[in-house]
Amino acid sequence: MHDLIIVGGGPAGLTAAVYAIRKRLDVILVSQDLGGKINYTMSLPDMEPYQVIRGADIVEKFWQELDYLDFARRLESVTAVTQSNNTFTVHLADQTTLAARAIIYAAGVRVQRLDVPGERRFLGRGVSYSAISHAHLFIGKNVIIVGDGPRAHRAVAELLQTANQVHLVTPAGEAGKTLRELAANREKLTLWPGYRLLEIAGDDFVAQVTMQAPGGDVETLYIDGLFIELNLIPNTQPLASLVELNEQGRIIVNKLNHTSCPGLFAAGDITDICVEQVLVAVGEGAKAALSAYDYLLPAF
Amino acid sequence: MHDLIIVGGGPAGLTAAVYAIRKRLDVILVSQDLGGKINYTMSLPDMEPYQVIRGADIVEKFWQELDYLDFARRLESVTAVTQSNNTFTVHLADQTTLAARAIIYAAGVRVQRLDVPGERRFLGRGVSYSAISHAHLFIGKNVIIVGDGPRAHRAVAELLQTANQVHLVTPAGEAGKTLRELAANREKLTLWPGYRLLEIAGDDFVAQVTMQAPGGDVETLYIDGLFIELNLIPNTQPLASLVELNEQGRIIVNKLNHTSCPGLFAAGDITDICVEQVLVAVGEGAKAALSAYDYLLPAF
Repeated sequence: MHDLIIVGGGPAGLTAAVYAIRKRLDVILVSQDLGGKINYTMSLPDMEPYQVIRGADIVEKFWQELDYLDFARRLESVTAVTQSNNTFTVHLADQTTLAARAIIYAAGVRVQRLDVPGERRFLGRGVSYSAISHAHLFIGKNVIIVGDGPRAHRAVAELLQTANQVHLVTPAGEAGKTLRELAANREKLTLWPGYRLLEIAGDDFVAQVTMQAPGGDVETLYIDGLFIELNLIPNTQPLASLVELNEQGRIIVNKLNHTSCPGLFAAGDITDICVEQVLVAVGEGAKAALSAYDYLLPAF
Repeated sequence: MHDLIIVGGGPAGLTAAVYAIRKRLDVILVSQDLGGKINYTMSLPDMEPYQVIRGADIVEKFWQELDYLDFARRLESVTAVTQSNNTFTVHLADQTTLAARAIIYAAGVRVQRLDVPGERRFLGRGVSYSAISHAHLFIGKNVIIVGDGPRAHRAVAELLQTANQVHLVTPAGEAGKTLRELAANREKLTLWPGYRLLEIAGDDFVAQVTMQAPGGDVETLYIDGLFIELNLIPNTQPLASLVELNEQGRIIVNKLNHTSCPGLFAAGDITDICVEQVLVAVGEGAKAALSAYDYLLPAF
């Protein structure tokens, strides 16, 4: 039996693993792959790299360390986590299991894609799934946002500060009253209710999108950036009913990364501290590792 | 009037400042000096640098950036923070003031020193003020801990896992019953109730301490490490009654770094998320900056 199993190989999980190794815990990290969100970066034609806060340097060091310490990682996906008698069992896709006294869950979120031609090609070259990470780079640019929920609304608020023209596509239909009033008063904001994206095109970077009106007409917009701000889907399915989730399906944690289940800790975007930032995930992973260490440390 | 004033130039404050600059806020960081805790490192005769998680690389980059952007920093100490009509005023030691719509308070903690000869000389060369940061480096070593409170107790628990011999000096007098029972059962733990350290000595690294018993006898212990685990004193004095503090005098924050005072955010070891780790402070500073940004972002 291990002291600690960490589920997830992104910034939070990798940081937690390196902390746990330093603290001499018997730890194993389980993930399908390593790196997580640090694989998503953004480049623009006229942008200098220092404008992005990547945090990737430190995460890459942790990644290399864990890649080297192959006894401490298992590249496999997790199908279920169960608990009995103060022992957690992690069930893997290859039908094997691992057991531990404590768990750190840091399996992140999946983005919801539009699944239109050009979406993958221009990812990180004008196409972003995270306005909170990249909006500040689009100073004086023309951008289009796709989404109906709070993430899209926040993207509008932030991009109105920096961008030149902001287009909002609300696929589900008409935008709310506040957004319609705002668009009536702000020339730089245009709403496209019920439109559907058909294609994303460009050369080195995204340059235009074509979209279809509810009535069937096709429009082309020339833009420098496309923000796909649909729901983020937390990868909590293997946890079943082990922990309390919030209404978005994220794991509820306290400020020291405890969940509702003693011995089970969580960190990163899978929790209700979901701010989509590498450096925040690093801090949360470190805090979760310290909390797990304190949980495992024999009392006296 | 600025958008945001950040008080404190350690890892939390520097990270918050760089985030705020990226988000194009009108921000100024006020601190007597820059770097904070990253100036405290630990070296031991036989230790390889990779064993320490410093996080200093990333903080040093932020530091250099802020040193270069001299309009965004003010090297001065803060005497008071006051608030009226949704405006915060920061009073500086040179009698000038700065005003802003929001504040991030990240002024850290001061360690309590023993004030004995050798203490400064061997700092980072065997002498530490933070077992949570350095205990795991003392594998198979002989160490001495000084302190009466929970920090000293946690240091004992952690060092019993790794060290060879653990000495605990409790200056206030006899240790509690649990510690006395533990010492009776564990050969590697020795208690020194009411002793007072006289001198810390060594060559390149700390090698011995002399101390005096309550009765006046002088003892010499040969050790590899000295952990001074007295109270940490939060630098909250200029905040007076603006925010709610916990019983240790730390600023109470929620998991998104809001305090009890709207518009005033806090991050790092000055808060009740005090885990003495650079990477955690970096994450907390980033989170506080995002929360301040959301507070300042015009609603629509």
